[in-house]
Amino acid sequence: MQDNTRIGEVLSTLDKGLPQALQRLLEFLRIPSISTDPAHKGDVRRAAEWLRDELASLGFDASVRDTTGHPMVVAHSPKGDRRALLFYGHYDVQPVDPLNLWDRPPFEPEVQDAPAGKVIRARGAADDKGQLMTFVEAFRAWKEVHGSLPTDLVLLFEGEEESGSPSLRPFLHENADELRAGIAMICDTSMYADGRPAITTQLRGLYGDEIIIRAADRDLHSGSFGGLAANPIQLLVNALATVKDAKGRVTLPGFYDGVEDLSDELRSDWDDLGFDPSEYLSRVGLRHPVGETGRTGLEMVWNRPTFEINGITGGYTGDGFKTVLPAEARAKVSFRLTGTQDPQKIREAFRAHIRNALPDDCTVEFEAHGASPASRMDISDPAFGLAKAALSDEWSREAAYIGAGGSIPIAGDFKEILGMDSMLIGFGRDDDRIHSPNEKYDLDSFAKGARSWARILAALT
Amino acid sequence: MQDNTRIGEVLSTLDKGLPQALQRLLEFLRIPSISTDPAHKGDVRRAAEWLRDELASLGFDASVRDTTGHPMVVAHSPKGDRRALLFYGHYDVQPVDPLNLWDRPPFEPEVQDAPAGKVIRARGAADDKGQLMTFVEAFRAWKEVHGSLPTDLVLLFEGEEESGSPSLRPFLHENADELRAGIAMICDTSMYADGRPAITTQLRGLYGDEIIIRAADRDLHSGSFGGLAANPIQLLVNALATVKDAKGRVTLPGFYDGVEDLSDELRSDWDDLGFDPSEYLSRVGLRHPVGETGRTGLEMVWNRPTFEINGITGGYTGDGFKTVLPAEARAKVSFRLTGTQDPQKIREAFRAHIRNALPDDCTVEFEAHGASPASRMDISDPAFGLAKAALSDEWSREAAYIGAGGSIPIAGDFKEILGMDSMLIGFGRDDDRIHSPNEKYDLDSFAKGARSWARILAALT
Repeated sequence: MQDNTRIGEVLSTLDKGLPQALQRLLEFLRIPSISTDPAHKGDVRRAAEWLRDELASLGFDASVRDTTGHPMVVAHSPKGDRRALLFYGHYDVQPVDPLNLWDRPPFEPEVQDAPAGKVIRARGAADDKGQLMTFVEAFRAWKEVHGSLPTDLVLLFEGEEESGSPSLRPFLHENADELRAGIAMICDTSMYADGRPAITTQLRGLYGDEIIIRAADRDLHSGSFGGLAANPIQLLVNALATVKDAKGRVTLPGFYDGVEDLSDELRSDWDDLGFDPSEYLSRVGLRHPVGETGRTGLEMVWNRPTFEINGITGGYTGDGFKTVLPAEARAKVSFRLTGTQDPQKIREAFRAHIRNALPDDCTVEFEAHGASPASRMDISDPAFGLAKAALSDEWSREAAYIGAGGSIPIAGDFKEILGMDSMLIGFGRDDDRIHSPNEKYDLDSFAKGARSWARILAALT
Repeated sequence: MQDNTRIGEVLSTLDKGLPQALQRLLEFLRIPSISTDPAHKGDVRRAAEWLRDELASLGFDASVRDTTGHPMVVAHSPKGDRRALLFYGHYDVQPVDPLNLWDRPPFEPEVQDAPAGKVIRARGAADDKGQLMTFVEAFRAWKEVHGSLPTDLVLLFEGEEESGSPSLRPFLHENADELRAGIAMICDTSMYADGRPAITTQLRGLYGDEIIIRAADRDLHSGSFGGLAANPIQLLVNALATVKDAKGRVTLPGFYDGVEDLSDELRSDWDDLGFDPSEYLSRVGLRHPVGETGRTGLEMVWNRPTFEINGITGGYTGDGFKTVLPAEARAKVSFRLTGTQDPQKIREAFRAHIRNALPDDCTVEFEAHGASPASRMDISDPAFGLAKAALSDEWSREAAYIGAGGSIPIAGDFKEILGMDSMLIGFGRDDDRIHSPNEKYDLDSFAKGARSWARILAALT
């Protein structure tokens, strides 16, 4: 163990150095590293090189690593014999359109006074430059106090997160031995709703599918064929209406195999969050939760699998009316998965359900769109409890283990390719406007985020 | 009664005059009276004037009558005291695209040898110039033999049938007294499948509706809201899946009020047609009738009401995949109606069904698309039996009363506005390629069609 009595020194070093840390962040934010826009290809590389130089100046062995797309930045602290930690962040940012909705140029960052305190206003302030700099600043203060970096740190920064991460999985595969660590720390998420510190310990998986049902070999007139010929929209609708029952449960055989109820520990943490599903829904104009009966709102979005129809189309959908009996109908659907549900088995059960709903003169074609199991971290690993305690200390309120209803692909990739669990710890807020005009990051998130990492480093290294 | 013994003379006059009748038809077909194309506005009028001149030369009091669109042609034979007959046809034609699929220029008509006999090849040959000229030629021969036209004929020719007949209903309303007759003869349909002469005596009605279900006030991410927030596609699908039961019957309360089983007379005629639903479906790549169990194929398409989903759309329907939980979903649906089903009552029942399927934080908007009851002609009117016998005599096979699964708006308009039933008698064939390249009309249809009308005139005047 490091000498943890010196954590107070690291924290006060961070506090004293905040103005300079902020200047560094603003410099980083001035680089318009929009990964989806080919015109900014050079800027994306410049951001990678900026990061490499920062890390090298702290004593990391840092390099910009080319891929077929934008480069990765990889950095290592000196090799020791302790538990290795991997830190992940991304240095690319979202596009800025529509530019006219910004109050100031998105790449001219500014610290502004806002009702709830100071904020850093710029594209990328919260997603993800401000967040990744929280742990970089924690390393800097650590070095200043201890004279050296913690050993066995691996840092991985991606420049394609906002454009689908096409190079990430190949890079992980090719550099697995270099990157594998005991656990990954991913700093790209928000705190729980009201600013409560949190560690995301489970993510739902996803299996997506597209269905194309075909009946007649051409569009028919419903006057000549209506009531006699199969209508593929009706067949599709009938099949999709029976995937869930009246209680919101999926009816596919074996669907719930691997779904597990919450542990007492997580149930207690989640109950303690005071989530009010009606209030949550009221933000988007709704009132009633529609999930499985007998489940809490957070269970519905974090711990229960679900089925959703994401798109449907068939027949005439333009202005006016056509009494057409179409030749085909299509839908895109997805299942969110939890526990150890097997996407492959669910695919088979779903496709059998659709096929069974069709007469034998109609056909169906499927097109798979992703299949990833749920991620559930092993919170019995002491690192989780230590990190949770460190967060609680910093924020003076009990940190929570939370879930996420969506997938965060990087966590699944780390698990699948490198065999590591992840802790998703971030300091964003619900009102950060990431991906939208006037993105901001609270100065408090930045300052206390860096302090949080210092405490976590002290606890884990 | 006219002197019906002279029908033999009228028929032989038609036979002798066929070459000249054909020349007149070819002249008429050379006029490119495409009503949907503004460039052909003058041609449409020229066709109207051509018809007027033909009719005037036969002794009709004929005129071209302006509307806000293309003109009507109205003609009267001398006023008598017998049962008045109205004859309807349309002199406009469909567009000719794609022109490169025509074997010869569409407005350079030609009589060609074909495997089943001679055909007249041109746009409008069957739809509807060739058909309307069958009764005009019957009038001509009648005049030649009798020295005068039958009294109390009203002829109405429309130039907007292929463009939705926008002027027709106003024209009928404004000229109701002039146009009202005992019964209307509409010559714009085909013979029964294998060339059997037929009178269409019932048409299904139609009620169309559009449904827009709205849930959240914006598109949601299914990771954040899936399993908790209402999905309007799922609500729509659930509601549409329960409009019909497993036996193909519509479940709306009161839906079958006014639906009547076939009379013994019609059932016998229909059974005699030897309709094979599997063979009929095989032409479009299907095998199995899907209508109500326990009904024959012809009942399903002609005498049973039905519900069809004509279009559906919601969520993401482009390439790839988005895990969106959309704000709204839409469908266009229609009910085909029979007997005395009331479209208004069915609309209310359908809309109540949809509303009942929604939680109270979701809304639905409807947009009506037409509501017309079924048309059922009173075949106890002796005119039907007389016309049927006349057709049977001409074609040497028993004519049939048949139904039609679609609406033919003109028949409903005559009933609603002028209070008359219609006999839909036409001599088209299934392979006439109306609305398509290489439209044709069998020379046999033209010659025997004119003879059929001569016999019907003899029977009814």
